Amino acid sequence: MASAQASLDSVKLAMKATNDLFNTEVVVKGNFAALDDVYTADACVLPPGGPMVSGRQAIREFFPGLVASMHAKSVALSSVEIIPAGDGVVEVGAAEVTVEPPGQAGSVVHCKYVVFWRQEDGRWKWRLDVWNMNA
Amino acid sequence: MASAQASLDSVKLAMKATNDLFNTEVVVKGNFAALDDVYTADACVLPPGGPMVSGRQAIREFFPGLVASMHAKSVALSSVEIIPAGDGVVEVGAAEVTVEPPGQAGSVVHCKYVVFWRQEDGRWKWRLDVWNMNA
Repeated sequence: MASAQASLDSVKLAMKATNDLFNTEVVVKGNFAALDDVYTADACVLPPGGPMVSGRQAIREFFPGLVASMHAKSVALSSVEIIPAGDGVVEVGAAEVTVEPPGQAGSVVHCKYVVFWRQEDGRWKWRLDVWNMNA
Repeated sequence: MASAQASLDSVKLAMKATNDLFNTEVVVKGNFAALDDVYTADACVLPPGGPMVSGRQAIREFFPGLVASMHAKSVALSSVEIIPAGDGVVEVGAAEVTVEPPGQAGSVVHCKYVVFWRQEDGRWKWRLDVWNMNA
């Protein structure tokens, strides 16, 4: 039990590292190559207002438009619930997206999400990513 | 391997039974007590346009308003991907909601969803349920 808890704690640290990478590289810097370190090769993204996006190439092509259309400047991800599930982890979380549309004051868009995490190449990555807006 | 496949097949049948129950009892008949057989006691629902809804009582109170506001008459759920995850199952699916707002012709709203399934009291139920619209 103590060992399982220690193991989960180390997974949580690895998850935080991936979430931080998504913010600093993908959203803040627009380094979309970093998506390969965030999503597994067989990942699926389920964005509001559009069809499902499946696989590494499609995900790379999808994100520049999403970030641009939201005028997203950064995103803060925080776990609400973490459920170990076999060799994966199911996470429920809250996302606060800081947006700055042209000519408008910056504001925060509140989203909630579910991510199914799997390990790939020694990293914890997003295998499924689905979200929606709180309002 | 053959045994694991047979086991997954039986889980899929149980999942279909729960999905059918959700449609026929909850959406078509408005029998919201049946939600207890669809969602686990500790389930969380993440609906678009609102905050997370947690637990049996809150879920029972949430659904009548959702069905009424959507003018939902029925829903067809179909699995797109099923991923075994420990003692649970992660499902990606498509939902076609038939709606009939007053004074309008019936139409279909296309949604996509992720459900994390767990067993409770011998039934397969929704532990997490998150969805959004395709357009």
